[in-house]
Amino acid sequence: MISFASDYTTGMHPRILEAYAATNLEPLPGYGMDAYSSRAAEKIRLAIQKPEAEVFFLTGGTQTNETVISTMLEPWQGVIAATTGHIQVHEAGAVEYTGHKVLCLPSHAGLLDPEEVEAYIKTFYQDESHDHMVFPGMIYISYPTEMGTLYPKETLARLYDLCRKYDMKLFIDGARLGYGLASLEADMTMAELASLCDVFYIGGTKVGAPIGEAVVFSGSPAPRHFITMVKQHGAMLAKGRMTGIPFDVLFTDGLYMEISQHAIQMAERLKEIFRTKGYAFAWKSPTNQQFVILPNEKLETLRKEVDFSVWEPADETHSVVRFATSWSTTMEDLDLLEQLL
Amino acid sequence: MISFASDYTTGMHPRILEAYAATNLEPLPGYGMDAYSSRAAEKIRLAIQKPEAEVFFLTGGTQTNETVISTMLEPWQGVIAATTGHIQVHEAGAVEYTGHKVLCLPSHAGLLDPEEVEAYIKTFYQDESHDHMVFPGMIYISYPTEMGTLYPKETLARLYDLCRKYDMKLFIDGARLGYGLASLEADMTMAELASLCDVFYIGGTKVGAPIGEAVVFSGSPAPRHFITMVKQHGAMLAKGRMTGIPFDVLFTDGLYMEISQHAIQMAERLKEIFRTKGYAFAWKSPTNQQFVILPNEKLETLRKEVDFSVWEPADETHSVVRFATSWSTTMEDLDLLEQLL
Amino acid sequence: MISFASDYTTGMHPRILEAYAATNLEPLPGYGMDAYSSRAAEKIRLAIQKPEAEVFFLTGGTQTNETVISTMLEPWQGVIAATTGHIQVHEAGAVEYTGHKVLCLPSHAGLLDPEEVEAYIKTFYQDESHDHMVFPGMIYISYPTEMGTLYPKETLARLYDLCRKYDMKLFIDGARLGYGLASLEADMTMAELASLCDVFYIGGTKVGAPIGEAVVFSGSPAPRHFITMVKQHGAMLAKGRMTGIPFDVLFTDGLYMEISQHAIQMAERLKEIFRTKGYAFAWKSPTNQQFVILPNEKLETLRKEVDFSVWEPADETHSVVRFATSWSTTMEDLDLLEQLL
Amino acid sequence: MISFASDYTTGMHPRILEAYAATNLEPLPGYGMDAYSSRAAEKIRLAIQKPEAEVFFLTGGTQTNETVISTMLEPWQGVIAATTGHIQVHEAGAVEYTGHKVLCLPSHAGLLDPEEVEAYIKTFYQDESHDHMVFPGMIYISYPTEMGTLYPKETLARLYDLCRKYDMKLFIDGARLGYGLASLEADMTMAELASLCDVFYIGGTKVGAPIGEAVVFSGSPAPRHFITMVKQHGAMLAKGRMTGIPFDVLFTDGLYMEISQHAIQMAERLKEIFRTKGYAFAWKSPTNQQFVILPNEKLETLRKEVDFSVWEPADETHSVVRFATSWSTTMEDLDLLEQLL
Repeated sequence: MISFASDYTTGMHPRILEAYAATNLEPLPGYGMDAYSSRAAEKIRLAIQKPEAEVFFLTGGTQTNETVISTMLEPWQGVIAATTGHIQVHEAGAVEYTGHKVLCLPSHAGLLDPEEVEAYIKTFYQDESHDHMVFPGMIYISYPTEMGTLYPKETLARLYDLCRKYDMKLFIDGARLGYGLASLEADMTMAELASLCDVFYIGGTKVGAPIGEAVVFSGSPAPRHFITMVKQHGAMLAKGRMTGIPFDVLFTDGLYMEISQHAIQMAERLKEIFRTKGYAFAWKSPTNQQFVILPNEKLETLRKEVDFSVWEPADETHSVVRFATSWSTTMEDLDLLEQLL
Repeated sequence: MISFASDYTTGMHPRILEAYAATNLEPLPGYGMDAYSSRAAEKIRLAIQKPEAEVFFLTGGTQTNETVISTMLEPWQGVIAATTGHIQVHEAGAVEYTGHKVLCLPSHAGLLDPEEVEAYIKTFYQDESHDHMVFPGMIYISYPTEMGTLYPKETLARLYDLCRKYDMKLFIDGARLGYGLASLEADMTMAELASLCDVFYIGGTKVGAPIGEAVVFSGSPAPRHFITMVKQHGAMLAKGRMTGIPFDVLFTDGLYMEISQHAIQMAERLKEIFRTKGYAFAWKSPTNQQFVILPNEKLETLRKEVDFSVWEPADETHSVVRFATSWSTTMEDLDLLEQLL
Repeated sequence: MISFASDYTTGMHPRILEAYAATNLEPLPGYGMDAYSSRAAEKIRLAIQKPEAEVFFLTGGTQTNETVISTMLEPWQGVIAATTGHIQVHEAGAVEYTGHKVLCLPSHAGLLDPEEVEAYIKTFYQDESHDHMVFPGMIYISYPTEMGTLYPKETLARLYDLCRKYDMKLFIDGARLGYGLASLEADMTMAELASLCDVFYIGGTKVGAPIGEAVVFSGSPAPRHFITMVKQHGAMLAKGRMTGIPFDVLFTDGLYMEISQHAIQMAERLKEIFRTKGYAFAWKSPTNQQFVILPNEKLETLRKEVDFSVWEPADETHSVVRFATSWSTTMEDLDLLEQLL
Repeated sequence: MISFASDYTTGMHPRILEAYAATNLEPLPGYGMDAYSSRAAEKIRLAIQKPEAEVFFLTGGTQTNETVISTMLEPWQGVIAATTGHIQVHEAGAVEYTGHKVLCLPSHAGLLDPEEVEAYIKTFYQDESHDHMVFPGMIYISYPTEMGTLYPKETLARLYDLCRKYDMKLFIDGARLGYGLASLEADMTMAELASLCDVFYIGGTKVGAPIGEAVVFSGSPAPRHFITMVKQHGAMLAKGRMTGIPFDVLFTDGLYMEISQHAIQMAERLKEIFRTKGYAFAWKSPTNQQFVILPNEKLETLRKEVDFSVWEPADETHSVVRFATSWSTTMEDLDLLEQLL
């Protein structure tokens, strides 16, 4: 059985396992106060060329999203997201659980349209009765989006301008950040992205780490007592080394981008295979998630030997199916897939 | 530098590291749906002889406490805890963040007194105006407590009786469960403890696992849609294998109790060393945490070579200092400590 | 200056003022335990022919919506509402503040379409990954809606059927209930409406009372300890008489429907005036709120003598303007308006 | 039947009823934007000699407490209160429902001891691990307290000094403020009290108003968008006139203090009656609530003709009983009580 089901199906990059082993019996302070976590934070600051950025390691994506969003919003504010945004759809209402509304705007293949965002914000402040409404306090976007698409640098710059104009925050969910930045269509570096938002996170779980996401406050200071809030929100580990070490490894010798590029090469090859075999794509994705239209019969036979995610029905007889590559996808996996198609 | 600072200063039991390595590239479903998590749950059910118990793996202690407490309480209810209870003191208000009050009762070396608990509950229901008060809906205790002490089986049985009489829940925080059950003064097995509460958790992080706690609903069914609540509360990992595998290993061939017994042997030896050297204890602890009274001068010199936790001032010239042993404490560590005293 | 700005601009029906005066120095128990509140509840039960219905008096609409919704939902559930629903737009995120998501579906002139609702619910349960989603637990509708429109009885019955089929609740926001039931196009009585939902509220504030809304659990029992929850949510008054007395008066000798019918007669006359003067309506409303399209110049001159609400721009040179009648609107008000047009 | 059960058993001061009647059909803007509310706020600013103070009218005490506390605290902070504080005991956990912890300190006949408060705050900041604890962000006191006692001006000044020293807020719950300031033992005016705290509220419901409390930010600016937060917390009325008019009346010609003084005269007479008849008091109260020790037999016979509150058992055969006077207590009530004793 080969798996393209998601980018979190395998364990961790072997070098992380090695680092866990090498440091295993070393006594370290807990709760992120260890030297590996500090070193990882420092390496991230170097990578994004922001010596003053504040970096924290949290356990996973949902925890990160709700902790960052709720601590950066004022109580009268909500967060703008696309209708397809992860916080809107697949986090069990974790943001609302913190008391904040998700303010939905249309999704264009996963992307927000800056014109529509500005129209919404403007209208809000024109309406006399806005004292009884939830104020937009933040824009949440994903890079790459849940549909595998990417914001061009120019669009990101426009969204960030909007935020500064209206005293809002821009937060980038980078659960798959590496696979976005390594895309052949990406037009920015991590440093550039870091300078076009208030806060973003560097996805670990889906990009080679076993657990952990690195929250980076690159454009705004971290909320006061952020550490206490991470504890209160249950996103902290006693053994902080478990998230610090992976990022220390991933940000040594460019490993993070190296394995991300590998995943993108695998995705490009996967696209080629499907194209050659005559399959169409539900929409164009330049990153590690590919959305292929499969006849339902083919889907059923393929399912016996390949693991993937059925996304949604395409029509009566076809489905949209997601194939995801990752740092651990191999050419052998792809060769096998090719034979099965 | 040797460390007795806490039981979470080292990484993980070597067999867990081996299991991570052995399974690393195996593709597995996420979010706790993997075979290792299922197997670990099954082994736990066997260990406590409760085939119908429901078992879930969460990331850490604070997350576990707030998720279990808030999902088992009704919105008009609060949770009874000792003034020294972890949820009352050291979880940054995580329980209150879920909207529930912690109802404090006196701590007797970390323990609740069942007489006082019953008096409180009774009074509550006698007072006519209790419609404007927070109803006690759960008793929270720790085994062992934050002060290293243990509830005798008979006391636990009385607390559980009270809960059933007043339609409340009994929840045992077992962050250090192994070190409690392995104590020379423990008078019950894990199976007996499991049959004297509605829900408890088996501490992983402090007992050899890198992360993770196993929540066991042994006396009550799990709250409906508990999985969704774990997601909403940010206590879930995409790579559920990271918590499932450690418990699979710890519950194979009795490893969990074996390493707990080791920690207790180390603690007994540590007590002997301090006693022999003429030091007194702030209170009697039969588990892995020992609270020694040190002259402040001694504390300062010792600090240069040994890591420990300063608990509280004892008097003008002395302090209460906590020394914790764990699964990874060695005789060499103790010999070194002895020489330094 | 005459006012059609809203239905809450004047004080209270004179008979309520008389009743306040007549009972003013009578000592009464607090928190809704007084005889007037009990009597009002009994009269409401009679009016809807549900002897077992549970009735509570809360201070205002937003308080009522968030208290009812959050106490009837389970923590993993959200509430379905139209995009124009009051809870979605104009309650400052009060529902989200209780931790629950508002699940938006399209508004058709303020109304939900049962087909779309069923499609949404069905899809939800087909999707494998719904454990990470917010479960729909309630349908919230307004009668009449925020746009003045009404659900036909048949549509209400279909929505209620859906709720029973999928184990959900149906909640009707009746802030303007009288003005809906008294409409010439209404096809049901209050008793019929009460039998087609789990819970609804009878608007007081906008229908002659100074404050207060009567929550009626007609199809489901009230949540356990609902009184405690009303206190916790800040929707209770020490002087419960202040909400009990108005409902006692309004439900004596059919006053509630009598004043509602008066408001509808005034609205019909208002429609006639605008029609005769050649104005168009932005949409058809059979209740006390009328949405007229006015040239912006006219709007500016009229504004000097008449109070109304500017709803939204209609086009470059016209606006949609809301004129609301109420129990206190007089023929003199309308004659004056006619002269000014 | 005469009633000393509480100070909220009768309706409203007759002048308020008159003002309601006189203004009843006047169309007014909603949500506190009416002229009476503005005028009442202005009169309050005059009374406390703070032209820049911000004044808001909320529906009742619990709503006011939880809204003020939660909007002035940062998310990592809790509020210090005496164990007898109303927010700790009788508000159904409303403060915790907003996500904040009540940090309890001992009650000395209802009062906090500034030494104990400072010791607590100091210890907090000495403890290294305070990042995992709830930070004290506010001191909550009641004037008069729930036990009828009063803070001397000097104590209040010390508590306020502490707050400024540690960057905390001081909030005074004045549900019965008039009865405190009118006490023969009070050593300050409302203006002096206003200058010794960040925020306080002037109790309306218990001091002659039918509903409503006036929140006064006299030492700190109101939290940003406080109006939106009042809406979100359900403490706002559409007919804001219902709370604005009473305060306009109460702050005209010194009515608020006049009726408060009356209640205190009645309380002094009541004390005299009990003393003369040989009854003892459970503790000394200089305000409108008196706590008398009654033999249980006497309690039972008296109960048939007088309404009062049984507070708690005094011993096997006696109870502590609360008798409250108010603006509406008459000499006839007291004469009758005297005869019955």
